[in-house]
This record gives sequence, C-alpha cells and structure tokens, in this order.
Amino acid sequence: MFGNTIGVLFRVTTFGESHGPAIGCVIDGCPPGIKITQEAIQHELDRRRPGQSHITTSRVESDHCEILSGIFEDLTTGTPIGILIRNQGADPHAYESLRNVFRPGHADYTYQARYGIRDHRGGGRSSGRETAARVAAGAIAKLILAWDEIKIFAHTIRIGAVKARKFRREEIELNPVRCADPKAAVSMVKAIIEAQKAGDSLGGIVEVIAEGVPAGLGEPVFGKLDAELAAAIMGIGAVKGVEFGAGFKSAEMRGSEMNDPILSKGGRITTLSNHAGGILGGVSTGDNIVMRLAVKPTPSISLPQRTVDDKGRRKTLKISGRHDPCICPRIVPVAEAMTAIVLADHILRLRAIRNS
Amino acid sequence: MFGNTIGVLFRVTTFGESHGPAIGCVIDGCPPGIKITQEAIQHELDRRRPGQSHITTSRVESDHCEILSGIFEDLTTGTPIGILIRNQGADPHAYESLRNVFRPGHADYTYQARYGIRDHRGGGRSSGRETAARVAAGAIAKLILAWDEIKIFAHTIRIGAVKARKFRREEIELNPVRCADPKAAVSMVKAIIEAQKAGDSLGGIVEVIAEGVPAGLGEPVFGKLDAELAAAIMGIGAVKGVEFGAGFKSAEMRGSEMNDPILSKGGRITTLSNHAGGILGGVSTGDNIVMRLAVKPTPSISLPQRTVDDKGRRKTLKISGRHDPCICPRIVPVAEAMTAIVLADHILRLRAIRNS
Amino acid sequence: MFGNTIGVLFRVTTFGESHGPAIGCVIDGCPPGIKITQEAIQHELDRRRPGQSHITTSRVESDHCEILSGIFEDLTTGTPIGILIRNQGADPHAYESLRNVFRPGHADYTYQARYGIRDHRGGGRSSGRETAARVAAGAIAKLILAWDEIKIFAHTIRIGAVKARKFRREEIELNPVRCADPKAAVSMVKAIIEAQKAGDSLGGIVEVIAEGVPAGLGEPVFGKLDAELAAAIMGIGAVKGVEFGAGFKSAEMRGSEMNDPILSKGGRITTLSNHAGGILGGVSTGDNIVMRLAVKPTPSISLPQRTVDDKGRRKTLKISGRHDPCICPRIVPVAEAMTAIVLADHILRLRAIRNS
Amino acid sequence: MFGNTIGVLFRVTTFGESHGPAIGCVIDGCPPGIKITQEAIQHELDRRRPGQSHITTSRVESDHCEILSGIFEDLTTGTPIGILIRNQGADPHAYESLRNVFRPGHADYTYQARYGIRDHRGGGRSSGRETAARVAAGAIAKLILAWDEIKIFAHTIRIGAVKARKFRREEIELNPVRCADPKAAVSMVKAIIEAQKAGDSLGGIVEVIAEGVPAGLGEPVFGKLDAELAAAIMGIGAVKGVEFGAGFKSAEMRGSEMNDPILSKGGRITTLSNHAGGILGGVSTGDNIVMRLAVKPTPSISLPQRTVDDKGRRKTLKISGRHDPCICPRIVPVAEAMTAIVLADHILRLRAIRNS
Repeated sequence: MFGNTIGVLFRVTTFGESHGPAIGCVIDGCPPGIKITQEAIQHELDRRRPGQSHITTSRVESDHCEILSGIFEDLTTGTPIGILIRNQGADPHAYESLRNVFRPGHADYTYQARYGIRDHRGGGRSSGRETAARVAAGAIAKLILAWDEIKIFAHTIRIGAVKARKFRREEIELNPVRCADPKAAVSMVKAIIEAQKAGDSLGGIVEVIAEGVPAGLGEPVFGKLDAELAAAIMGIGAVKGVEFGAGFKSAEMRGSEMNDPILSKGGRITTLSNHAGGILGGVSTGDNIVMRLAVKPTPSISLPQRTVDDKGRRKTLKISGRHDPCICPRIVPVAEAMTAIVLADHILRLRAIRNS
Repeated sequence: MFGNTIGVLFRVTTFGESHGPAIGCVIDGCPPGIKITQEAIQHELDRRRPGQSHITTSRVESDHCEILSGIFEDLTTGTPIGILIRNQGADPHAYESLRNVFRPGHADYTYQARYGIRDHRGGGRSSGRETAARVAAGAIAKLILAWDEIKIFAHTIRIGAVKARKFRREEIELNPVRCADPKAAVSMVKAIIEAQKAGDSLGGIVEVIAEGVPAGLGEPVFGKLDAELAAAIMGIGAVKGVEFGAGFKSAEMRGSEMNDPILSKGGRITTLSNHAGGILGGVSTGDNIVMRLAVKPTPSISLPQRTVDDKGRRKTLKISGRHDPCICPRIVPVAEAMTAIVLADHILRLRAIRNS
Repeated sequence: MFGNTIGVLFRVTTFGESHGPAIGCVIDGCPPGIKITQEAIQHELDRRRPGQSHITTSRVESDHCEILSGIFEDLTTGTPIGILIRNQGADPHAYESLRNVFRPGHADYTYQARYGIRDHRGGGRSSGRETAARVAAGAIAKLILAWDEIKIFAHTIRIGAVKARKFRREEIELNPVRCADPKAAVSMVKAIIEAQKAGDSLGGIVEVIAEGVPAGLGEPVFGKLDAELAAAIMGIGAVKGVEFGAGFKSAEMRGSEMNDPILSKGGRITTLSNHAGGILGGVSTGDNIVMRLAVKPTPSISLPQRTVDDKGRRKTLKISGRHDPCICPRIVPVAEAMTAIVLADHILRLRAIRNS
Repeated sequence: MFGNTIGVLFRVTTFGESHGPAIGCVIDGCPPGIKITQEAIQHELDRRRPGQSHITTSRVESDHCEILSGIFEDLTTGTPIGILIRNQGADPHAYESLRNVFRPGHADYTYQARYGIRDHRGGGRSSGRETAARVAAGAIAKLILAWDEIKIFAHTIRIGAVKARKFRREEIELNPVRCADPKAAVSMVKAIIEAQKAGDSLGGIVEVIAEGVPAGLGEPVFGKLDAELAAAIMGIGAVKGVEFGAGFKSAEMRGSEMNDPILSKGGRITTLSNHAGGILGGVSTGDNIVMRLAVKPTPSISLPQRTVDDKGRRKTLKISGRHDPCICPRIVPVAEAMTAIVLADHILRLRAIRNS
C-alpha cells in the first residue's frame, strides 16, 4: 500500500485529476470467472455521484464508467481490469483565481510543498473526485466478497450535533444523509441546510459494518486487518479518525467490561458482546466488523478565510461554487468501497496459506 | 506493508514468539554512513522493558540486543541490519493449562481460526513481547530522523477516568505512567493499583507528537502519511482507535472552526491552529504531527472470565501471572517507534522524487 | 515486480487485451517537473507500431496515445500518469476458429490452465500488442534518464544464421531489421522474406546498451540491477535467454581473462575491458551496460502444426493472417523501454539512500 | 523483489556479512502445519558448505543453523521463521590489506560507489557466504513444494572446455563437481585442479530442472515465471546469463522447429518436445522447467592482477587464501534453493486466485 496502489493480491491503482481528461483505475489480481457487468459498477458510482440530492454539490457528472479490459463476455479473465471515467463537469476556468492561493483545510499547500508543482483546478489529484475510481474498484471487490457471502454497508450516525438514536437498516438509502434513523435524518438535513446558508459546513461520523466475515482474515503483525482497514479509511480525504468496536470508549473501560466473553453456539465459536469490533490481534473473529470514522466538515466554505498565496502574501478567501456542505452522505459508498477492497485482498491472502 | 514487514524504502521485518528462543528484526534500506551503536538501541529497549516499575509486569527480561549485521565500525553500510534479542524470562510450562483454551480479548481464537495451529505460550507471536523488535528498529529510525532534526515523543494523556490537565514535557519520563502532568500521574498510578487489586485492568489514551517534520511527507492517494501512521499505530496490540489533530471532535465542528487559517511567518508558510494534526490531504504541513491512540484495558485479568476450549467446551478462566494492569506506559516507546519507522520511510520516499 | 506492475519507486502497471477496447498503462512515482509531451511518447510508439515495413505484420494500428492524467501544462506533477491507446485494427471474428484450439508456442494453453478462461482473440492479454503500453511507459522513463544523461539503444545482432559483423550506430534505425551492420541487414531481410515465403519464421539476438549509467545502481542481494533487468527483459514474450557482458562465453573463460582490470582514468575509476557488462555484484560499475537477449522465432506460422483443442481432440493448425515473420526489429524498442523502466526505478532508489 | 527480500507471498529476507557475527534469514508467508526440522535445513546447508572436497575452498564453516521462530513442535505456525547461522571461520585480519583496494571481478568498487562505505572483509555482504541463508530458506521452500510433489535438482553440465555428454541423475551427488556424467566429472575435476595450480579459475554452466510443476504457475505480464526465475538466478553472484529450454539456440531455429507440438496423453495436455523449457507466455506448461545458467570463473585468483586503491593509485594484486577455483559445484544447491523459493511463491500465488 503506497503511492496510488492499495492491496497485495487484490490491487487497485487509481489515476486522474479532478479537471483533467479522465479518472480511472486498474484492478489487478481479480480472480477469474467472476461475473462483472458495467451496470454493477455504475450502480455504485451512482451512489457516490454528485447532485443526488439538494444537500450535495450540484456539479454535474454522469460518472459513466467504461470497462477497458480484463472482462471477456461478462466474466473476469484474471487479467487487469481497466476502468475509465471521463470528466465532464470540469470547468477549469472557474479555478483560475485559485492558481496561486492555498485554500485552508485543503491539500493545496502540502502538494505544492511536496511536488513544487500542482494542478490547482479543483484540487487536482487531491480532489474527492478521485474516490469515484475507488468506488468502481470497490464494486468489483463487493462481487468477490459476495462469493463468500460477505456484505458491507455504511451509514451516517452523526452530523454536527445530531446523532442517530435508532438503527433501521432498510432506511439508510431512503434519506439523503444515509442515516438509519429516519427521524434523526430529518434533523441532520435541517442542520446541513442551516450550515450551508451560513456559508459554513458540518462534519460527522460514519459507521461501516461488514457482515459475514469469516474468522481468520488478517496478517500479523504488520498486515493486521484493522491496521489495513484503518489505512484504507484514513486514506479517504476528510477522515480524521478511525476506531473499531468500543474504540475510544475502551480507554475508560475495565478489562472485565471490555473483554468479550467467548462461547460456543451451534458448534461455532462466538462472543457474547462485540467490543472488539470483530477483530482481535489483527485477525477477524467471525463477528461483524464495526468501524467508525470521524469526518471533518468540508473545508470549502463561502465564509471569508485567512490564507496566503504562493509568495506568502496575505489573502482573504471566499470559496464560491458547488460544494457539499457535509460530505458524510457521499463518504458512505466510498467507505464501503475501501472496506470491500481490503477484505477482498485479505480473502485472497487467506486462500494462499490454506493447504488444499 | 503486509505480513511481518512494514515500509517501502525503510523496511522492518520482525520475527519471534514470546516463548521461543528469540525475537528480532531485520531493517533493510537504512541509508549508509549513519552512526548506530548497540547502546542507542538498548536505551530504547530499556524504556519498553518489563519490570521497570511496580505497575508493570514483573516478567524478568534483560532484553539485551545483539547487532548481527549491517553495521561496520559503528556505521551503517546500507546492508540489512539484523538484530537479535534472546528470550530469557520465558516459562513455557506456566502456559500448559492454556494450550487448548481461548483467552477472551486475546488473539488465541483468531490465530487458531487463521492458521489451525498456534504457539499458545504467552500468546506466541501475538504477544506484546514482539514489540521489542519494533522498538529496536524504531531506535534506528529515530537516528535517521535526527539527521533531519525530527523528534518524536509520546505520553499518556488518560488512564481510565483520569485525564492529564497539564503538559510539562520534561515530566514525562519521570513518572511510571509517562504522563506530562505529574499530579495526574499520581492519580493514574493509584487507579492502576486499585484496578490491579480488584483483579482487573485499565485502558487509556496515548498521544504521539512528531516535531520538526518537514512539509511534503506522504504519498497520495494510498500512501498518505496519516493512513500509514494509522496502520502502524493500529498494528500495536491493544490499540482500538487512532485520530489526528481534532480527530473525532471534528465531527462536531464547523468548517469555519476546523480549517486552520494559513499565514506566512518569517518567510515560512504555517497555520494559526493545528486542527489538522500536521497532515492535509495525506501530506505533512510542516506543523507538528499530533496523533492519539485509544488503548484498551489489558485483556489478561485475574477476575474469572467465561470462555471455551478448542472443543467448544465451556470454561471459566482466571489468568494468573505477570501482567501489566495498564499497558499505556509501555505503549509509549512502541508508539514512538512505529511513528519513527513510518516517518523515516517517508523521508526516504520524498528524497527519491526530489530532482537534485 | 509481480502481476502487471513493475518497479518499486518508478512503477508501471499495464492493462489491456489485443482485441478489447483499449490497452494502456499507469505510471506511478514519476518525479514532478519533468517535461513530457504526447509527441515524445508517440515517437516511441511509432517505432514499435506494426506495419512499419514489408517485413512486419500488416495489422493496421495507429497506436495513438492519449495522456489521461499526471501531466499539467506539459510538466509531470508527481501524480500517476494514465495513458490510453485504443485498439483499432482489432478483427475479433478472424479468431473465432481459434476459440477452443491451443496454438503451439503461444500462451493459449497455459492461460487456460491458469485461469480456466481466456480471451482467445489474438492471444488476448498475452499478445505482443500489450508491449505498446510498455513502450509508452518507457518513453517517460527515457525522459527521466535523460536528466542524468543516460541513453539506451538496442539493435539486432543476429537473425537466423546471419550475424552482424560491424557496428555503425547511426545505421540502426535506417534499415527495417534495426541492425548496425548495413550489409548484414540486407542478408537478414532476405532471410526473413525467404522464411516467410516458406510459411515459417526466424529468431535472432538483440543487444541492448545503456550508456552513461553512473556507478552505484542496483540493490543487493535480491534487487540486483542485472537480476531486475533480466526479469524485465525475460518478461518480453519470445525472449528465451538473457546474458550480460561475456555472458555464456564466460563459462569457457578463465578468471585471468574474465576479470576486467581496474584502472584510474582522469580521476575516474574504470576498467580496461567490460566482460562484466557494466554490472558487478548486482551494482553498476559506471561502464556501459551490455545485455543480449535470445529471441525465439515467431510461433505464428502458416505451416501446418499439430495441436489439440480444449477437449483434447487432435487438430492440424495453419495460422493465416498478419504476423511478423521475425519479431526482432519490433523487440528493439520494447527492450529499450524495459531497460529504461528498470534504470529509472534504480535511479530513484539510489537517490533515496543518498544523504543530502 | 527488491533490496534483500524476494517473493510476494513466500517472502525471504536475508541478512549478514561474510565476517560479521552471523548471517541468517527470515521467511515470511510460509503456510502453517508443514513439518520442518533443523535437520532438513542443515542437510541442504551441508551441500553448500565450504570444504566438502579438495576442489572447494578450505574455509572451515560448520554452517550450523538455529531456528529462532515460526516453528512450534516441529510444525510451521504461519508466523515468520527466523534462521541464524553464526560465522565461525571468519578471519578478518586476513583482509586488512584489502581494506582500500578494489579486487577485479568483485563488487568492491561498486559497493563503494553505491554506499560510500563497505565492510571489506571477505566481500562483506557481497560474499558468496550470504547464499547459505538462501539455501536455508530454499530448504523450507522445497518442503512446501514436496506437498505438490514438485522436485528440483541442478547439475553441472560444463566446466571450462569440458561438457557433460551423458545424463545419469543418480551420479550427480556422487562426484565433487555434481555432474550427471561421471566420465566428464573426472575431466572436470582435472581441469579445475590444473587451473588452480596455474593460479587461475574456471567457469561453467549449471542446469536446473524442476519436475512435477503443474501448469498455470506464473503471473502475466510482469510476474512471469521465467522472468522471476531469471531474476532469482541472476541474483546469484557469478551468474552472467540465464536461458530456458532452447534458450540462445532458439535464435537460430525456425518457428516450425521451435514450436512444441501439442498433444493429449492420457487426458492430459502435453507437448512432443520441450523447447519452451516448460514455460509459455510466462506461465508453466506442466512440462519440466529447464533452465541453464552461465557461471563466470571465480574472480579470486592468485595470478597478479591490475587494479587501483580507493585513491586511484595503481596496485598489483595477488589474492591468496581459501577460494573455490570453480564455483559451479557449490552453485548447484544455491540454484536449486532460488528455484524452489520462486516456485513456492508462485504455488501460493496460484492458490489465491483459485475459487474454492
């Protein structure tokens, strides 16, 4: 996992800038014989697409994906799968005023410091737009996981001060914030609109759950499942923290509370509680993997902000344009994708050490 | 980063079980010409060593390290550095009763599920003892970072319900919990002893700070500095969460609060606040890197616990023996080591793309 | 180096099948600030393109490349460079008769054995067409090497029984076999045409020379420069052997002949001869790197061949169509590209360990 | 494959210098449950050990190996296997005169150029002694391959001008040159002794054969089986060329000769001949893998040689001491080990893509 590639056996490499000709990805190591259609990938892309509701950016992108290779007569052949998504809503001129100015909370300055050069248009490579390529790869990972009956879903459990209090899974995709508590969802939407009107933005917390994960996934000691999931999740822009199971709460718990009592149920070893979040010693327990991510408020706000240009001259910046006032709803499919990619990789890694 | 190796250019591979003949590591990719002595490594090992105070395990291990290769006349030669630490305090017979029983909160069951076999003695490979090898490698990473005047330190900011309220850096190594608030340290020690007497254990929060980190470290989009630090930190047993800068707090902040205003100070670009924790878009900003980790209470407790054996038969387990009632103080040097390893790797990765 | 990716720091991933929608590559780790134009890449692609002369395949492919990302205003930004080459001359129906038949000397059966499925059209992923993507990546590698004044060229030194006897570098690109001996070139062309008329094909030997390579490239002990070059070259279809310097001749030499005497010349350490081929102990000496590759005769011949179909039924196969009777001339740019990719990677790897 | 690590799933990292405290290796990714004893590893080490006969170096090394980890009650546990071999015959003072002088044909100058520092004693890291660690790892790889009934052996087919004319497999280990032709072996020994008396050394050719390799091993396009074998073999010091099947002979063959006709035999697809050397398109065919390596004459000779010291001053060098006059016999077990390591890795890589 480095540069623009993630995975050991199921490897995803993404490329592309927000306002260049296209973004895309190459998925290498996908097992052969898996049915994959353009539609299955497009379905996930549509869940991440901008402009889904009134509380997301209005940038218009169809995010149409084209499969370039690796799939023959709808089946994977074991060769690398190239996927291409042309940029359409790109309006590079809109960014001319930002060519030499560093936006607070964005990667403008850090990219400049690292590379001495950057494509400033819409954040270039650091734009959230790049995650479309991840979602396309994640769609394929999900199809691999489906073979092992592993399912992944994510949902928003907090936006600003509003917390979800109930969990009704079937509600998640029915409201624009992807919250499992429909009542909280209404309050979340309200809070977002209020922040947006104030020229501001909101953060939140997203929870990812992976069901049906077999025990035994994860490589000690540096390829632990939670370590790699944490890296994958932290690699999503805007994520500032990640926790598993009891997470930061475990700091205040006692061992006698935290430890999940082990029992045998129908011949299968399981636990009474799941404070571990489905992972012990870096290896999956067989219980649900439960992970939460802290999402910072979108840095693009229209309130005036203090910054400097590349000559160090003081500037006051007001960012206009099409920005999500809260990125949580659109992080949901991305977090699922990253989780799926890591799990698919580990499924393959586990197979390798199983003596037939 | 997978299996037992971490790093792309500065690569650390560890090996060894808690009660086997030895543990150790191989550090590959260390630049040549760096002065490294056995003493510098031993110093860090001594900070992690068991038996440093009355609140850590009383297992006796000198943790003496031997340099096997890669260093000639006290200078690195660019070839792999082998380091060997013999196990001494190992008492394998003490673990015979645990051969077929899965300890709650430990990796016993998950290793069994993954491998179908395990060295049950003291947790085998999943034992915290393995981290001694990481600390040895981290000592070398710290010497590389010293070239660039980067310094890393960690400290305990919470144990159970007790939080540090002050920060006096010079106090950290003066108390057994490694807390920068000497008054809080006294309460923390008291809380630990109380928990231990009750047959229980405590968790806490450790903060890691890296000073002097240049802007520009971190590879987008899957080799982000925070992603790799998160993986490195999450790879420490007992860690259940990690956050950077404002971390989980950012969920409740607005963009206008969260964004760090950018300014120019003495010709150098910096920020007024550091909610980002020193990393934006996965690349270091030049400010301090600030990272916090949630440490769960030690799973080895003497209170009776419900579990099963490998046949699924119900067992009541009381773990006797030499266990840390709270692992935070000894996680401090390990967290520093992992941070140093990741930063050293990224320093080398940055050099590679700098055209001389 | 595995799957469809080569390189540690300068990483090239290719994708695409001979008769799918497109082939292409992603180049990750390219240093920022290097001038790269579509024309520079196209120039190399045109050298590999089919249909350059009467002795290569007449398949019509413009091999037009499109840069998708990583280059902004003609300069690399340090982000991954995506390159797309659409397939045009693809005629999938021409291959319907080969759907279930294994062509001798091709990867048909081995892909089937590995994956249980394959895109049979023109060899699918195993087609020589995939090397166009390598040549595109190699063009970029050459531009990196140009910074260090490293130049790479290859030439045909043998085809069938005809050997080059003279070396006039400027002649190489002037004849259709890319031979530095214009007289031998005429004989080579004649031999190829004669073989083609007989429904047969010819093999040969190609030599690659890298000039201006600094001493010090290559990582002992498993990342040796010759080891990685050998892998890169052997990874070209049709190559059945590779040797450096004296190569297989060294088997019959004595140490006193083989060892290159070392001398100092103008303050620079060099050798009297170059039997080592520019590499000792896996690390470059500063002398020219000299490598030769054995190229087997093209397996696609129109003479009848014995084979079986996927049910094991005996078949007699006559391959008609547009095939190179000798692949040496078109392997020249591919061998240069692979050499450039490996050297660029090692240039970056050397920088990483140089303390500034 | 880079630095001092080889392999993707079955990963071997070696460390150690010729005259440091020890050499050794860490093997990561070994499947669990495989029986491995110290004796099995020692057996292979004894085949490589110096001083086996009057035609190898008389340096005394017992090459005793100690297993440090990863094996519990004689079975692998899936955790990294650490192996330690202490250096015993080291006589560092014998090398003091070579501290600043570059030996022709050795890596002295190239290491100095790369690292600016080197352990000059016996070649340090570039010494052939390092291959003992590879042989230990190869012993474990062979045990993995034994599960799939894959067997590897190598033999000397040429030394200087003497070629083996017969193949009697059972003879190989019965003569000091490991030649399958006992009559040629006698001539080879004679030639070696004659060269040694003249203060000189001889090269040769070693052939490696892998039997029982299933069809389907090898990852296109950059992880081809022949590419990775070539790298592994070229990574052995003294090897200057490698070829598969018809190898360099294929340059003079026609397609109609070279192509191996495919037939079905007992329901299994096979070929009439094996000019391909068991690999097509980078993937194993199911036939024997046949590989030959060109071994240069040992560079350490006692005849006077021209060289310079690190100040560029001209020196005449006579290397005295305990050196193999021909390294072929001792390269045999090393070539087997490297082949076994690569095949074991590919066996695991194939398992990963096989849907159960």
